[in-house]
Amino acid sequence: MLLETDFLLQSRWGKKLFHNHAKKMPIIDYHCHLEPKEIYENENYRNLTRIWLSDNGIGDHYKWRLLRANGTEEKFITGDGDDYTKFLAFVETIERAIGNPIYEWSHLELKRYFGIDLPINKKNAKTIWDTANAMLSKKEFQPRQLIQKMNVHLVATTDDPISNLDYHKLLKNEEDKNGFKVLPTFRPDKVMDIMNTDFLTYMEQLGEVSGLVIGSYEDLERALKQRVQYFHEIGGRLSDHGLNTFYFQKATHKEIEKIFNNRLSNHPLTQEDIVKYQSAIQIYLMELYVKYSWTMQLHMNVFRNGSEKGLKEIGVNAGFDSMGDQSTLAREAVKLFSEAELQNVIPQTILYSLNPNDWLTLSTLMGSFQGGMAQKIHLGCAWWFNDTREGVENQLTTYAQQSLLANFVGMLTDSRSFLSYPRHEYFRRVLCDLIGEWVERGQIPEDEEYLGQIVEDICYNNAYEYFGFFE
Amino acid sequence: MLLETDFLLQSRWGKKLFHNHAKKMPIIDYHCHLEPKEIYENENYRNLTRIWLSDNGIGDHYKWRLLRANGTEEKFITGDGDDYTKFLAFVETIERAIGNPIYEWSHLELKRYFGIDLPINKKNAKTIWDTANAMLSKKEFQPRQLIQKMNVHLVATTDDPISNLDYHKLLKNEEDKNGFKVLPTFRPDKVMDIMNTDFLTYMEQLGEVSGLVIGSYEDLERALKQRVQYFHEIGGRLSDHGLNTFYFQKATHKEIEKIFNNRLSNHPLTQEDIVKYQSAIQIYLMELYVKYSWTMQLHMNVFRNGSEKGLKEIGVNAGFDSMGDQSTLAREAVKLFSEAELQNVIPQTILYSLNPNDWLTLSTLMGSFQGGMAQKIHLGCAWWFNDTREGVENQLTTYAQQSLLANFVGMLTDSRSFLSYPRHEYFRRVLCDLIGEWVERGQIPEDEEYLGQIVEDICYNNAYEYFGFFE
Amino acid sequence: MLLETDFLLQSRWGKKLFHNHAKKMPIIDYHCHLEPKEIYENENYRNLTRIWLSDNGIGDHYKWRLLRANGTEEKFITGDGDDYTKFLAFVETIERAIGNPIYEWSHLELKRYFGIDLPINKKNAKTIWDTANAMLSKKEFQPRQLIQKMNVHLVATTDDPISNLDYHKLLKNEEDKNGFKVLPTFRPDKVMDIMNTDFLTYMEQLGEVSGLVIGSYEDLERALKQRVQYFHEIGGRLSDHGLNTFYFQKATHKEIEKIFNNRLSNHPLTQEDIVKYQSAIQIYLMELYVKYSWTMQLHMNVFRNGSEKGLKEIGVNAGFDSMGDQSTLAREAVKLFSEAELQNVIPQTILYSLNPNDWLTLSTLMGSFQGGMAQKIHLGCAWWFNDTREGVENQLTTYAQQSLLANFVGMLTDSRSFLSYPRHEYFRRVLCDLIGEWVERGQIPEDEEYLGQIVEDICYNNAYEYFGFFE
Repeated sequence: MLLETDFLLQSRWGKKLFHNHAKKMPIIDYHCHLEPKEIYENENYRNLTRIWLSDNGIGDHYKWRLLRANGTEEKFITGDGDDYTKFLAFVETIERAIGNPIYEWSHLELKRYFGIDLPINKKNAKTIWDTANAMLSKKEFQPRQLIQKMNVHLVATTDDPISNLDYHKLLKNEEDKNGFKVLPTFRPDKVMDIMNTDFLTYMEQLGEVSGLVIGSYEDLERALKQRVQYFHEIGGRLSDHGLNTFYFQKATHKEIEKIFNNRLSNHPLTQEDIVKYQSAIQIYLMELYVKYSWTMQLHMNVFRNGSEKGLKEIGVNAGFDSMGDQSTLAREAVKLFSEAELQNVIPQTILYSLNPNDWLTLSTLMGSFQGGMAQKIHLGCAWWFNDTREGVENQLTTYAQQSLLANFVGMLTDSRSFLSYPRHEYFRRVLCDLIGEWVERGQIPEDEEYLGQIVEDICYNNAYEYFGFFE
Repeated sequence: MLLETDFLLQSRWGKKLFHNHAKKMPIIDYHCHLEPKEIYENENYRNLTRIWLSDNGIGDHYKWRLLRANGTEEKFITGDGDDYTKFLAFVETIERAIGNPIYEWSHLELKRYFGIDLPINKKNAKTIWDTANAMLSKKEFQPRQLIQKMNVHLVATTDDPISNLDYHKLLKNEEDKNGFKVLPTFRPDKVMDIMNTDFLTYMEQLGEVSGLVIGSYEDLERALKQRVQYFHEIGGRLSDHGLNTFYFQKATHKEIEKIFNNRLSNHPLTQEDIVKYQSAIQIYLMELYVKYSWTMQLHMNVFRNGSEKGLKEIGVNAGFDSMGDQSTLAREAVKLFSEAELQNVIPQTILYSLNPNDWLTLSTLMGSFQGGMAQKIHLGCAWWFNDTREGVENQLTTYAQQSLLANFVGMLTDSRSFLSYPRHEYFRRVLCDLIGEWVERGQIPEDEEYLGQIVEDICYNNAYEYFGFFE
Repeated sequence: MLLETDFLLQSRWGKKLFHNHAKKMPIIDYHCHLEPKEIYENENYRNLTRIWLSDNGIGDHYKWRLLRANGTEEKFITGDGDDYTKFLAFVETIERAIGNPIYEWSHLELKRYFGIDLPINKKNAKTIWDTANAMLSKKEFQPRQLIQKMNVHLVATTDDPISNLDYHKLLKNEEDKNGFKVLPTFRPDKVMDIMNTDFLTYMEQLGEVSGLVIGSYEDLERALKQRVQYFHEIGGRLSDHGLNTFYFQKATHKEIEKIFNNRLSNHPLTQEDIVKYQSAIQIYLMELYVKYSWTMQLHMNVFRNGSEKGLKEIGVNAGFDSMGDQSTLAREAVKLFSEAELQNVIPQTILYSLNPNDWLTLSTLMGSFQGGMAQKIHLGCAWWFNDTREGVENQLTTYAQQSLLANFVGMLTDSRSFLSYPRHEYFRRVLCDLIGEWVERGQIPEDEEYLGQIVEDICYNNAYEYFGFFE
């Protein structure tokens, strides 16, 4: 039956590894998009639509896309349609979604959080709606309780360098009570985005929050240093760069100063100027990350906001993104890492590409720059559109082929929803089944102590050791 | 044994879904290269070589390539060699072709049409030849009967805009007697191909058949409108664009007029001119397709006629094509669809790429432009070189991961041969086995009514609804 | 248990085909990097570290990368660390390497050469070290005996055109005694590498060894002709081109002469000049290969020496390479083959790409240029980073889908180590299991005579026939 005990576990060893080892491990969710404010305020959600689909136009854009693909009116996706009609539209969509991870996630979410064990379909819709809504008003369905229920030890949010991290501070005080940490991640995309029309305003804000005036590139570096230190003090150990496309070109400090000054005085920049500026920032940040023993995440090859109409009418992160097709990603990344290596500024790094055509290439690339510690560089887990059974299996297989899977730091949710933690369970089932298959093919020994330890390491221990969140 | 009842069906649920649901569904073959003339004239084939391999240099270029790979002289492929020697060369080739879809298709074709249940090898060659040839002279081996035998309800051919569609008209009259429709598909490749040395002649022909003289781009638009309407009246509901490479760039009407006039007066065009012209035509045609509620097929990323010698000596569509490697396909397609969306001219669309490296990217792209109806945009089925067990499974999995598989319009033959319909059976077996696997992994419910309906929808009902051929 | 009799063999037919057919076939290792000098001198290795990992900074860079990924100090990889500590570092690395082919290869190597049937881990480390070392001093662990033990009939080394092939000559005399041939492969990379700072010196050396002075491009062609003939006389039947990136552009003989003269007189060349020169050399060599009935191997899409620091401090072929990302590979290769076909100079060819994203494209490309003999062009076996269970299966499946797998020339080691022959066993197991799966899905007949012959052909007979080494 649907999502039973051995869901996704085909091999005898897969079952053993999951039930005896993976299941019990806590979660370190080292990359997500939860709002610290929501965690802090800890308010109940009004109904299933609000927590699951959209709440005042904010919500899970994975599901929005699917609703659009089924022809649902935007009114009943991000618009002002009534919540039950929105829910019904989602039910009808799910009925057409076999083979889509959202089909399985949605069922898992109902089962794990609400104990609802029914296929999502028109016949069961009313029962699901009423049962879930009745529960949602209870204390145990407040955000913090949802996090605790899933045995999450750490939530790493995604934050702008100019954020004052007030909610992180407040949550830090309640850490012991909550039983989990909420730590910030430094996401300097707006620092990189030099051609943005808001860049000058952003520089002002960044100066302000750092206690200086940014009148030169050197000032910018000083401000960034201050911000990294600030994040570090509050417990931040991670950064995250969204590099939709990525090019690398070295330049002298003098050149960078000139480019930056040109931007500040609104003189036009060439494409080469932009690449040089971004390369300089990239290397400088890596220097800081090394200094503070941070881990840098690079999220690459995304084509964001492809639909101009969608962007204008609905906004960013609303389901109008697709995989990028930059085919020169690897050669540019090699340039970056080769230069960083010469300067001794390769930090702990996780390389993600949204386009799985890059994974093998990137994982062979990372092999050229490892060293100094166990698994300094990781191939990031199957991300966003790749967060499927096949995608997870592909990423794990690629990682294992080209590096040391037993060192892998494992899964994250990357989610905006408090109901997404079952994605960790999903990942662990795929992981255990894959290792179980290797046992059955005679590729690795039938040694539960050995393999169980590896599974536990990938689920929790490696992330615990690698990121230094708990030091 | 070879191709038995449960051929390709490994899972218990795969068997159930295929035998109880997929098998009985009729076929809507919404894209192929059959000649309406041949269907109309309905003549028997002289022998197995003629219907299976080549008939006066026309035939199945998939098989020709394989013959060449086995070192067969061209004389016994497309040349004037004798038919039995050609057949024997094919038998010897097939013996080396395990794992190639042509191995399985050829056996299926002998089995389903001729009831011949023998491995194709030198030992059985004579028996197969004699048995098949004896049957080929019978009425039931005439083209129309071959179509009927496979329970085909619709054949959509591929036609040039200047075609007068005479045979389609004749066949329309016999539709009820035949029990199947033969409808044209509008394939405007020659309209796009502005640098072709025959372009001016083609414009003349297009003008003539549309009842006007094409002296300006505006005239061209008028002619195209007339042709789409003409195809529509005869039952056409589909277009098909062969975009070997694709680039998109907007231009003003004035620019396009100038570019077109330059071409008419044989002035040289720049690469940018060509792209602008093609982009304008593309958008204009999409406007027409929306107006007539047509579906647009885009067949992308093909490298045609790679062998200059092959092209010169044997010709087009003769087995000298390969997968394209345009790596910027997605970003160009995003530009097209974003612009079309702003102009409200995205028609029902099916996106095919010959290079499966593009499939995930394209399927995430289509997710950004869905809406207005259920599954407006489809990822096209595994095409040409991808029409293999693994290719079909890959396409279905990709589709399911990123969209709503239950809405998929399913398979087509893309074939030049009257013996290709078992490719639908092959597709259905792979589809059912895949869904069966999902059941066995606990990913979807063990609910035959639910899953059986989805299978029937993908095999027939969705295409019936989507294309509007039967309205 | 680990690597037992049916290791990797899941299907009943896979087992049958491997044990009855594949296992017994000798090996033709038609591409590797063994040193003929080492084979000739035939000296014992001092200990397991020396034969397995590194010997005075020379050794298996696949393993070096893995050691680095586990954080091993360079001192204990290529440095002057003591051998036992190096071995222990490798043991610890292997313990983290489940799913990596090196995990399985290493176990297979201990088992097949040393009869050591223990998991490689810290607990067993001392036992393995002592057992292996005790054996390594025996005669049967000398290089030639290791080759004989694996039933190898031929070793094709990789040699520079200026090599005098002295060790090949010496080994030729002992061929009958050894029971295997050692033949040279012509690797003209330095001829292609016109911008190398050592190019002029290299031209001098090439002239010297060919008995002429290279003062013009015509002289260069004469020298190459002489060298190919020289290699041919000593038994060479193969060439191998390492094309990290590849572009093709025709030029007149006059242009090439001018480009070459400019280089000789140290005038700067444009990028176009370089491409034209390389294209001319490429075509000329193909002409020579056709003349001598050689097979040309093209190894494409490699990004070598990505780490500038690694290159400087450790050197080439030391684990600092990754997959290339040239996305235009196919279109450039089409140009080359189309031109070569017009000139009638397509030799027997094997196309390898390090980036498996290219495989389907290349295999459709080769289908456009086949002819004149059975399987003139092959898609090369899964190479380097692709030499994994999944990579081998992918290459075989791709080959089978697009061409005639039964004609495939099979596996090679590409290795620098005398302990790598079990990679052939590994390949054969994957091959047999794959064919076995096809039987179980009903795609091919349950006919052991037929399938067993195909397996034997792929393992040995096809290579025997195709390369002409034994004529």
